[in-house]
Amino acid sequence: MKEMKRTDELAKLEKLGVNILNQLKELQNPQINIPLRSLSNTYFDEKDQVLKIGEKTQERTYLNLSNTKKFMQTLLLASACKDLIKSGKTTSIRDLFYMTKHTIGKSHENTFEDQSESDPIIEDLEVTIDSLRENLHLFASTRGAMVGNATIVDSGDTINLGTMGSGGWGVPSIVEEDTIEFKKIDANFILVVEKDAMWRRLNEDKFWKKHNCILMHGQGMAPRGVRRLLWRLNKELNIPVYIFVDNDPWGFYIYSVYKQGSINLAYENKRMAVPAAKFLGLSSYDQDKFNIPSNANIKLTKTDLGRCKEILNYSWFQKKSWQKEIKHMMDRGVKLELEALSKKGLEFTSETYLPEKINNKDWLD
Amino acid sequence: MKEMKRTDELAKLEKLGVNILNQLKELQNPQINIPLRSLSNTYFDEKDQVLKIGEKTQERTYLNLSNTKKFMQTLLLASACKDLIKSGKTTSIRDLFYMTKHTIGKSHENTFEDQSESDPIIEDLEVTIDSLRENLHLFASTRGAMVGNATIVDSGDTINLGTMGSGGWGVPSIVEEDTIEFKKIDANFILVVEKDAMWRRLNEDKFWKKHNCILMHGQGMAPRGVRRLLWRLNKELNIPVYIFVDNDPWGFYIYSVYKQGSINLAYENKRMAVPAAKFLGLSSYDQDKFNIPSNANIKLTKTDLGRCKEILNYSWFQKKSWQKEIKHMMDRGVKLELEALSKKGLEFTSETYLPEKINNKDWLD
Repeated sequence: MKEMKRTDELAKLEKLGVNILNQLKELQNPQINIPLRSLSNTYFDEKDQVLKIGEKTQERTYLNLSNTKKFMQTLLLASACKDLIKSGKTTSIRDLFYMTKHTIGKSHENTFEDQSESDPIIEDLEVTIDSLRENLHLFASTRGAMVGNATIVDSGDTINLGTMGSGGWGVPSIVEEDTIEFKKIDANFILVVEKDAMWRRLNEDKFWKKHNCILMHGQGMAPRGVRRLLWRLNKELNIPVYIFVDNDPWGFYIYSVYKQGSINLAYENKRMAVPAAKFLGLSSYDQDKFNIPSNANIKLTKTDLGRCKEILNYSWFQKKSWQKEIKHMMDRGVKLELEALSKKGLEFTSETYLPEKINNKDWLD
Repeated sequence: MKEMKRTDELAKLEKLGVNILNQLKELQNPQINIPLRSLSNTYFDEKDQVLKIGEKTQERTYLNLSNTKKFMQTLLLASACKDLIKSGKTTSIRDLFYMTKHTIGKSHENTFEDQSESDPIIEDLEVTIDSLRENLHLFASTRGAMVGNATIVDSGDTINLGTMGSGGWGVPSIVEEDTIEFKKIDANFILVVEKDAMWRRLNEDKFWKKHNCILMHGQGMAPRGVRRLLWRLNKELNIPVYIFVDNDPWGFYIYSVYKQGSINLAYENKRMAVPAAKFLGLSSYDQDKFNIPSNANIKLTKTDLGRCKEILNYSWFQKKSWQKEIKHMMDRGVKLELEALSKKGLEFTSETYLPEKINNKDWLD
């Protein structure tokens, strides 16, 4: 792996420590101000079209019984991340939990009992020093793969994504500049497919070769590595992004996580959300447009309908086109999976549906 | 993709059809004999050390109200698979469900209502014509990745698994000879890791380079593609296989699926199980051997203990060494995850634990 020199992150972590030291020297009760990660402190920025975190913060002070343990945990994890960065190694957040879990002195008190204690502290740390966990050398579970007209360098290895066979390159969790370099990217657009099965079909049909594009999937819910890589490809190289998901509220939400970002980790969206992304399909209007037989339909369940109502109220789904789309699906009372297109033949998606949608700019923004 | 000529599978499917035709010509009630896939028809073959399917069969006849629909479905799917093979295309079992789902004539009767109807019929078909779904051009959801001292050809693309960066090559579901060729494999052994996080750590430490091996993971429960590829690498090239899983009953069972095969799909094990595979760890004896701090321990839950009792009774866990291993874990009342090793330092697994275990042949068979 290329030598990782995260001087920015090291400086930020050091600043955190020095601040506390100074407070101690002045005999103050040491405290850290942590931006609030709650829903109440999350808003949709209309201008940037991204979910963002607001101005509210919480104080975490040492001399406060309900804060003391968390205060210790925050510094413990900050210190462990500093060591990680210095060692040039990366690891998982589960591993970090194990590495920092220990019994304190001669007490029976553990620093952490459970990973559910350390994970939120990592998020606190990210938001406090304004960084991503990937920059703190922490990786998430990986999902998703990529092929296409592109050559990248991953940890020093040059990889031609046009010769990756049926398997493709597994998108890692850490895709920052010092790990993944874009060597030669020759793609008119990036197509992100919700499901790996459809990705595999399109890869087999060499869709990316015919249409000079990059083909990615995230195996369901958008994984961090895929989101961040998409962000970089769009931001740094200005490549258009199309999202291709099931016609159901879950598919719509996956699209919105790629585009506007996730609600839970709103502070990360400025480095992960791709507002330029377009929703290519499936739209519930596609059934008539493309004559998809009605026995491909699946009835919307109560849970589906409940979820429809929820996303209908999200600020980032307030555009007329989206309100119309969601209500149309609810009125029809049915959903359509990507696989429904196969009723028109195995090659229909790659030969007809996708090219027509893209050529006609038949997407939702 | 290399031209796929599955003459064997085509001949088998054709024979199935011709048989039925002949029965019809002789005015017989057409029937198919399908080997029973139930647990009662599954046994552990001590000699081959593999879970196998027995001799019992069920008759599926056309003129039998409770059989007629399934009879139709079996032939419908057989015919669709024949078309798939002839077209040289592959697709998912969900796609096949959509492709074959239609309303019959002017009735309101659908060939299938739900994928839960078509999936078991695919399994019936596999076992009846003695084939794997992958040979019928059907793929499963993919999981798992691979790096190492090996060059393979995937669908015509030559891939050097030694230059795959941090992401690795995504192991596809279909890894049969006409899709994946072994071009140059120079590996002393294959290490299969249960979790992708540990795989990524070992890949970052270039464990496979130092120890001249192949590094795979299956992201939890053993995926079909990884199992089949492992089988081929072991069978065709005689490469030893080591399995590295959590010290808990779920990890032990994942190991046994790689080694003896799965219970549910016993008929497939002769093409997927790798009896030569060794259990490298984590063993509950490793804690003392390697001085792993006890605060890495997690208490076994009631569910864990129940699962321990179940696997204690499986025929393929009857070896003294395994009975001792499982009982020792139960007596200790705790489990250990792979990440527990990180308490000894981030590089402990790649620098100390794995090399020592392998050098000392400290494994279970």
